[in-house]
Amino acid sequence: MATISIPNPAPSAIEDAEKLRKAFQGWGTDEMTMIDVLAHRNAAQRKQIKIVYEEQYEEKLLKRIESEISGHFERAVYLWIFDPVERQAIMANIAIESKVFDFPVIIEIACVNSPNELLAVKQVYQSLYKRSLEEDVASHTTGDFCKLLFALVGTYRYDGEEINTELANTEAKILNDAITKGQFNDNEIIRILSTRSKAQLNTTFNCYKDAQNRSITKALSTETPNDFAIVLRAAIRCMNNPKKYFDKVFRRTLQKSGTDEDTLTRLVLTHAEKDLKEIKELFQTRTNMTLEQAVAKKTSGDYKNFLLALIGN
Amino acid sequence: MATISIPNPAPSAIEDAEKLRKAFQGWGTDEMTMIDVLAHRNAAQRKQIKIVYEEQYEEKLLKRIESEISGHFERAVYLWIFDPVERQAIMANIAIESKVFDFPVIIEIACVNSPNELLAVKQVYQSLYKRSLEEDVASHTTGDFCKLLFALVGTYRYDGEEINTELANTEAKILNDAITKGQFNDNEIIRILSTRSKAQLNTTFNCYKDAQNRSITKALSTETPNDFAIVLRAAIRCMNNPKKYFDKVFRRTLQKSGTDEDTLTRLVLTHAEKDLKEIKELFQTRTNMTLEQAVAKKTSGDYKNFLLALIGN
Repeated sequence: MATISIPNPAPSAIEDAEKLRKAFQGWGTDEMTMIDVLAHRNAAQRKQIKIVYEEQYEEKLLKRIESEISGHFERAVYLWIFDPVERQAIMANIAIESKVFDFPVIIEIACVNSPNELLAVKQVYQSLYKRSLEEDVASHTTGDFCKLLFALVGTYRYDGEEINTELANTEAKILNDAITKGQFNDNEIIRILSTRSKAQLNTTFNCYKDAQNRSITKALSTETPNDFAIVLRAAIRCMNNPKKYFDKVFRRTLQKSGTDEDTLTRLVLTHAEKDLKEIKELFQTRTNMTLEQAVAKKTSGDYKNFLLALIGN
Repeated sequence: MATISIPNPAPSAIEDAEKLRKAFQGWGTDEMTMIDVLAHRNAAQRKQIKIVYEEQYEEKLLKRIESEISGHFERAVYLWIFDPVERQAIMANIAIESKVFDFPVIIEIACVNSPNELLAVKQVYQSLYKRSLEEDVASHTTGDFCKLLFALVGTYRYDGEEINTELANTEAKILNDAITKGQFNDNEIIRILSTRSKAQLNTTFNCYKDAQNRSITKALSTETPNDFAIVLRAAIRCMNNPKKYFDKVFRRTLQKSGTDEDTLTRLVLTHAEKDLKEIKELFQTRTNMTLEQAVAKKTSGDYKNFLLALIGN
């Protein structure tokens, strides 16, 4: 479930656009009003506000936001305006073009979305960048990472319930053979993880656990893992139990020294409208701290206020 | 342009279903009536006939056809009933599951269709077989063939006009370096061919020709080609000039000794409703023989009559 709260009844898009305009005008910017309006509207409402704002005031809302605020607050608000599909396409492009290819972003987009959601992201990506997500991933990565990411991003998986238990047993064995030999980059591992349906993979992972008395992710983290094994593990966790995966990423991000604002922004924005409530609960159980408390400790100012509003403080 | 001729006005689906029913009844089957009805209706009309037939006579039309006729004639009529997208999904499955993996079928489906047409075939494939085309291709092939076919089938290419000439020049050079070294299975060749848009690839192939004074397909056929180079070449020709490619396949199929009915059926069925008119013209220019004459020499009986009706005799 989402964590953003939307007033009922919500103000009209005309009222909201007017409030934003007033917040931008005069001396300085009224950030609290911006947060008040934008953090408490869903994707459809934000889209409507943007349309109305641009009609009424003949200026681009995003351009205006960029000129009014700055830093992590600006980047977060900017990305938040978009709907989840557009935002993922933009985040994918940033991840691909950043100095260090940002694997988790691509893995999450490829593995958490349903096949049709991923397809929608790819379609928006093409309309924004005039290239396919596949070609950009393939031309910005090399070796085994390229093989894996390209296959994960490319495949239009079967999304039905139908599974083949015999096949799951066979492929669990193939996975185990390769993993115990430390051959994480084995073509068969990549083939199985990138092409089978999530329902089929789930069955395979269960067969794996039944036969080996440990989960495949456990096996991947104990068999002298390398960078590639870590990426494989992330892909499996994103497909198998995304909420648990994101709880972990939240904990890792919030517990390390310093603040990784890009990751924190991505996590909050991606889930606030979707499943952040459940992730928050997992987080609290594991850390004896609410997500709000943890985020508040790591952030400050308008950026902090904005994230906390999205987390549902 | 299509070669099938449809009467104007066409009989209603009820009349057609009735004619088929009469053709099936009594002693033997009236094949000429079957051909007369089915070879002269487009995909939408055939679908309608099937629906009406099954409502009126409470039996599956395809089952009845299977029980009435046999051999290559039966297989051709059976496949013809489906619309082009369904038929390609079925042909892909037959190609994958046949004793010897039938590369050209998969290459043609992956490379001739537009990205959205390919997506439609993949969607129907999933609804028919409860698996993705990608997983079936990947699990029935190995090595370089697997890499190439999986990438061609998987990628949802950019379909717009936007091209990058500088990139085309760079990638033409990459392709040439690998080809002149005989490294046809180079990862870069596979990446470029499988991920770039057709418009981009066209530009790259032109750069290749300008720089090397020979086309990439020419280079692939002269640099000590192996089986993999032949498949690469087919993929390039399917993307670059599918009509010329199919003219060539028609010629090869009709000029060799014996008859390869499966290929012949596929070629005629796939193009009769689409672009067989232009392929016929190319064929006649290259062979001094009409396609009808060449097909008539290689086939006989009802199968021959059916193909000739589709070719527009």
